Amino acid sequence: MLIKKLLTFEDVGLAQWGVLTEDETGVYSAIALEEAFFTPLPETLLDFIRQGNDGLLALSDALEQNEKTAAVAAKPLNTIRIMAPIPQVERNVFCIGKNYAEHIAEFDKTQKPDLPKYPLIFTKATTAVIGPEDAINSHTHVTSELDYEGELAVIIGKEGSDIPISEAMDYVYGFTILNDVTARDLQRNHGQWFHGKSLDTFCPMGPYLLMRDASPDTFDVTTKVNNEVRQDASTGEFIFTIPQLIQCLSQGTTLLPGDIIATGTPSGVGVGFNPPRYLHKGDTIEITISDIGTLKNIVK
Amino acid sequence: MLIKKLLTFEDVGLAQWGVLTEDETGVYSAIALEEAFFTPLPETLLDFIRQGNDGLLALSDALEQNEKTAAVAAKPLNTIRIMAPIPQVERNVFCIGKNYAEHIAEFDKTQKPDLPKYPLIFTKATTAVIGPEDAINSHTHVTSELDYEGELAVIIGKEGSDIPISEAMDYVYGFTILNDVTARDLQRNHGQWFHGKSLDTFCPMGPYLLMRDASPDTFDVTTKVNNEVRQDASTGEFIFTIPQLIQCLSQGTTLLPGDIIATGTPSGVGVGFNPPRYLHKGDTIEITISDIGTLKNIVK
Repeated sequence: MLIKKLLTFEDVGLAQWGVLTEDETGVYSAIALEEAFFTPLPETLLDFIRQGNDGLLALSDALEQNEKTAAVAAKPLNTIRIMAPIPQVERNVFCIGKNYAEHIAEFDKTQKPDLPKYPLIFTKATTAVIGPEDAINSHTHVTSELDYEGELAVIIGKEGSDIPISEAMDYVYGFTILNDVTARDLQRNHGQWFHGKSLDTFCPMGPYLLMRDASPDTFDVTTKVNNEVRQDASTGEFIFTIPQLIQCLSQGTTLLPGDIIATGTPSGVGVGFNPPRYLHKGDTIEITISDIGTLKNIVK
Repeated sequence: MLIKKLLTFEDVGLAQWGVLTEDETGVYSAIALEEAFFTPLPETLLDFIRQGNDGLLALSDALEQNEKTAAVAAKPLNTIRIMAPIPQVERNVFCIGKNYAEHIAEFDKTQKPDLPKYPLIFTKATTAVIGPEDAINSHTHVTSELDYEGELAVIIGKEGSDIPISEAMDYVYGFTILNDVTARDLQRNHGQWFHGKSLDTFCPMGPYLLMRDASPDTFDVTTKVNNEVRQDASTGEFIFTIPQLIQCLSQGTTLLPGDIIATGTPSGVGVGFNPPRYLHKGDTIEITISDIGTLKNIVK
């Protein structure tokens, strides 16, 4: 079978990773494949990403043997807990601000947005990462302006710096969905955005890592809050393309396997409405990206 | 002996850590103390910090035995290579912008600086960290405005969030010196500061970790470029004190042992001069902080 989507999950208390089945109802666990076919596979999806093509060849080999022998049964998704693809990110998540013109217009409250000449780059703390089945903490003692930002996230596959645009896609391992949850009051008050973007639980990610080779040229990004569509855009509207972002970010700065780049959010965030429509306890946010899936989280 | 200063160093190719001797000419290696006295000590200074008081008790015990037996000789500093206290930081370094009024005046080119009501918080990439004997890369293909920022850095000792000001100092393990090297053109162009602060080698740290209990109430920070004093201030001038910074940063965001908070730079940076006085290949930057030591790096 083609390796299209990978995931990290918990089953009977053990965090592990595996391959989504073609019908997307189950997962072949890497541990089970390793045991059945003596194929060495690392413990975490991050370590698997670091192995690059060697890892993919080993996994392909195990899946091929399983097609013949059916020795490993898929675990049904409804029996496991899906986690963020990389639950313990190695360093802060890179994020791009202002990468869709319509979002800049709503954020800056203007009809004629100033498009940035250079990407805005900030980070989110590692401790903010949660999975698709975890709740977003409303942190009502710290913020009264809780907001969502549906985004396509790039997962870097190999180390590099000063990466030229023409080679940038070679450094992409795959894609996932990321909610760049933001406390707008903290974002505004602290000038630099890190703090308002980094409260615990403010970085839901998942549910799947979509392999680069199985990805479309552009993705549709849709965000619903309590089933009402708020954001609906195509990554074809990016001001800075993914190769441009990788080229820029890697200028003098080494990118590492497992690094995550959130590519910016389209218009339709809560602060863009008049009056603003912030999140509250009990709200459900669902971000759907074509070909990847839906990242759903509830605010607690 | 009192445990006052700790350091990470390389000796015959092996990265390790130890305790600075009282006369500051040598280091008692943790590996040697462990072997001599069967005291379990972890491999890295970061893991030692994570052990908190248990680690300190074990180390004190070994040092006390060594005072009696002299079984372990100190390695002379001139035979080892001192590294950053935490060479592989676990996540991006937290940095505070605009924490000295005179620096805001020079940066904003005004006599009447607007003092921030809330701390500006941004981060520097993990890959930027270097030690006191490493060179700062001038990255002339990316920037023509290379600048220095001498800063006191706080090293967090234990995990916590929503830390009250009254308890904040309990979370401080110790202090070190940090040069928040900055590409001013990238800082300006990209709006958010992360990118211009995160090029490889842009985060020299060291040479020593000064224990909190051995620290003065305020530190003097002096930066020399090619032996000319450029920055000279006291941390008593901070707009936000260390407890205030910890309280703010930990609001809703979990701090971890080994986290580093660079507390902001005083006036006298290169961009503050008219015309600006940026760094060039061959320049030497020495940041001296009272009671800690001197962090010296050369631009290559």
